[in-house]
Amino acid sequence: MSQEIPYKIYLEEKELPTSWYNVRADMKNKPAPLLNPETLKPATLDDLRPVFCDELAKQELDDTTAYIPIPEPVLDFYKMYRPSPLVRAYFLEKALDTPAKIYYKFEGNNTSGSHKLNSAIAQAYYAMKQGLKGVTTETGAGQWGTALAMACAFFNLDCKVFMVKVSYEQKPFRREVMRTYGASVTPSPSMETAIGRKINAEFPGTNGSLGCAISEAVEAAVTHEGYRYVLGSVLNQVLLHQTVIGLETKTALDKYGIKPDIIIGCAGGGSNLGGLIAPFMGEKLRGEADYRFIAVEPASCPSLTRGKFAYDYCDTGRVCPLAKMYTLGSGFMPSANHAGGLRYHGMSSVLSQLYADHLMEAVSVEQTEVFAAAEKFARVEGILPAPESSHAIRVAVDEALKCKETGEAKTIVFGLTGTGYFDMYAYQKFNDHQMSDYIPSDEEIAKSLAKLPHVEK
Amino acid sequence: MSQEIPYKIYLEEKELPTSWYNVRADMKNKPAPLLNPETLKPATLDDLRPVFCDELAKQELDDTTAYIPIPEPVLDFYKMYRPSPLVRAYFLEKALDTPAKIYYKFEGNNTSGSHKLNSAIAQAYYAMKQGLKGVTTETGAGQWGTALAMACAFFNLDCKVFMVKVSYEQKPFRREVMRTYGASVTPSPSMETAIGRKINAEFPGTNGSLGCAISEAVEAAVTHEGYRYVLGSVLNQVLLHQTVIGLETKTALDKYGIKPDIIIGCAGGGSNLGGLIAPFMGEKLRGEADYRFIAVEPASCPSLTRGKFAYDYCDTGRVCPLAKMYTLGSGFMPSANHAGGLRYHGMSSVLSQLYADHLMEAVSVEQTEVFAAAEKFARVEGILPAPESSHAIRVAVDEALKCKETGEAKTIVFGLTGTGYFDMYAYQKFNDHQMSDYIPSDEEIAKSLAKLPHVEK
Repeated sequence: MSQEIPYKIYLEEKELPTSWYNVRADMKNKPAPLLNPETLKPATLDDLRPVFCDELAKQELDDTTAYIPIPEPVLDFYKMYRPSPLVRAYFLEKALDTPAKIYYKFEGNNTSGSHKLNSAIAQAYYAMKQGLKGVTTETGAGQWGTALAMACAFFNLDCKVFMVKVSYEQKPFRREVMRTYGASVTPSPSMETAIGRKINAEFPGTNGSLGCAISEAVEAAVTHEGYRYVLGSVLNQVLLHQTVIGLETKTALDKYGIKPDIIIGCAGGGSNLGGLIAPFMGEKLRGEADYRFIAVEPASCPSLTRGKFAYDYCDTGRVCPLAKMYTLGSGFMPSANHAGGLRYHGMSSVLSQLYADHLMEAVSVEQTEVFAAAEKFARVEGILPAPESSHAIRVAVDEALKCKETGEAKTIVFGLTGTGYFDMYAYQKFNDHQMSDYIPSDEEIAKSLAKLPHVEK
Repeated sequence: MSQEIPYKIYLEEKELPTSWYNVRADMKNKPAPLLNPETLKPATLDDLRPVFCDELAKQELDDTTAYIPIPEPVLDFYKMYRPSPLVRAYFLEKALDTPAKIYYKFEGNNTSGSHKLNSAIAQAYYAMKQGLKGVTTETGAGQWGTALAMACAFFNLDCKVFMVKVSYEQKPFRREVMRTYGASVTPSPSMETAIGRKINAEFPGTNGSLGCAISEAVEAAVTHEGYRYVLGSVLNQVLLHQTVIGLETKTALDKYGIKPDIIIGCAGGGSNLGGLIAPFMGEKLRGEADYRFIAVEPASCPSLTRGKFAYDYCDTGRVCPLAKMYTLGSGFMPSANHAGGLRYHGMSSVLSQLYADHLMEAVSVEQTEVFAAAEKFARVEGILPAPESSHAIRVAVDEALKCKETGEAKTIVFGLTGTGYFDMYAYQKFNDHQMSDYIPSDEEIAKSLAKLPHVEK
């Protein structure tokens, strides 16, 4: 094969973005404000400051500044593992025998194994700059915790991770990566927090959940002098930092005069998808270009496709601000058979608003078909993908196969958020034909949604 | 920080090497020939053909052709994960406060997690081209097996891996990566081969060894129609394929007018070190330039620094040709406390000859100091290194600290062969302060060397 567009487009260092892009500035319908959980009034900077670093709280509330400069030390850190490659999937195209042109932005080439590092290093930087001692957080699949541990090691911050108990036990190696970076890792629910002790008393032997780990991490932050809480997805600030993904992608595509037709990303809390599509969505919002955007979520945790657009709590313990988002209810728990991340009950307010305004589509996929796509992709493209990322692969392959039927040579871009090296339990299940699917019933979802908080519009 | 030389130098696709460089062509003292294990005469092409693919057997014996073209399909595959970055270790330099300039060639950004894929894809290609059904091999730490599984999946070849039993059990995730790529993985010693059954009978409950797994893989190849045996290190052909590492490194350095003073690599069988230094060694052999080359081996398996330069068997079962190399004796077993790879009893004939001719230095290091360097490196450079690669990090750091003492601004290049994501058992031991060192006694080595075969000079 020989072609003009290389297999991998790497930007030069001088082409890297120097500002994050805040898509909220271009949205006519802004995302609804966070609400203070006690007063149910829009959260102010002062409401957020006990929980979040000052600068991050400002970013959370800022829906008018389009470009926010990336601090120099964060830019330097980015240069250790960025630019990430934009890969032309020549081999996948050939295997599918499709006229579609497929590209993926690969964020897995760093030790955290995913895009999470893009926001972790920014959040750690602002915490260091504020003179804090450390940060607390929760982690489920472990990618966020690993990324934060790396970021904190770099800026000499203490890092306390509450890891959902089932992951702590099933993913001992993720835990060891965090420990190698000096983080302390506590299985959640723990006996270290009031909420943890309460949950342990109510549900002895529980495996934990992301919502519960969030509550523990927030409590640990607000009860320890010099600590703040940081989060790896859902929040506006996180989507902001993740726009380096989309900005690099756009620069790389522009360099070769490529205009995508469809942009696809997996969606759990929305950090990767929001970051990938932001600059393209900006063009769409400003009427400069049009694209199809597709959010892909697991059928077992379908917040966009089957949830309700409403105010809900972000955590089980109800200590965090409320957000207006597509949600399955803060008590919703995805089935135990669901592998990997993408298990959050809600969705980023930004993406929720864009979806409500019909600027973005969403589909849900079942996990056996996701792993089948992952295996095919691994064999032809040489990268073993994370289960989360493989949701996007599944739909990219489906769209490419549609092109084969219609003969259209569409350009498809998807986000390959990470690698699956720490998800081999799930792959083993798939290899052994032990993997199953689960789709929650309407009753199950209705029951969970019935417990949504009552908030005046 | 802002500087002329970027954090990462990525070559463009058109700058990638299109031929491998055969350093033997420039050696005055050629490596001694392989010997047929039955006749003890120099092995001919016909001797090697039952075991190796024809084209690979030719490469094994060719010590005169300086440049061997890389086949087009192999070049295409290389483009999926190459060029690998040459990284300027700005953050490590800063952490060490050294005037030295440190660079590393990072080969870990592919799913096999190491440089092994460079030779695996070449070997699989020649097997496919010869119309074979499949290949057999052994794997210890699992990097080679993973690489070969990926390569075979790409060319639709059957791949049968004998995995040292202790690794099979301690590294189930490596095994699952191989299975995801469609390989069959058998713990060795197995009951599938005569040699495996013999070893199991003699040593019930044995954990296996690399030498034993090699014997099983060779037997499986020669007793199955349409199969050949492939190997991930030691052989001339492997070092040849691995020269893509050194060739890319040299192109990248030349592009910025950088001339290294010291080039460092870890050495087990010699595949990475041989590939990294080859083009620089070529200059030295031709009198065009001078460099210091340092091979780093584990103190627990010190073939260069404490072994004997003599003909020895390459495998425990003594079915492979004999090679003249620095060896600890084919029965030598590194201590069970030794983590990771670099446990082979011998060393590549090419590197052995260069070392005997004083063209290269060698040092041995203990594993706790290796892991201490690995942890430091991970925290400042953002990459969790493989234990093997960390041997090179250790010595690069030591050389940089010497520069700090003397005030010399030397340029140090080392090979970072891979990532440690599948070595978290070893990191956990280190994190828990449970890791120990082992240095074999003179008696232990002498006892093993006493069993060397008697070969007329």
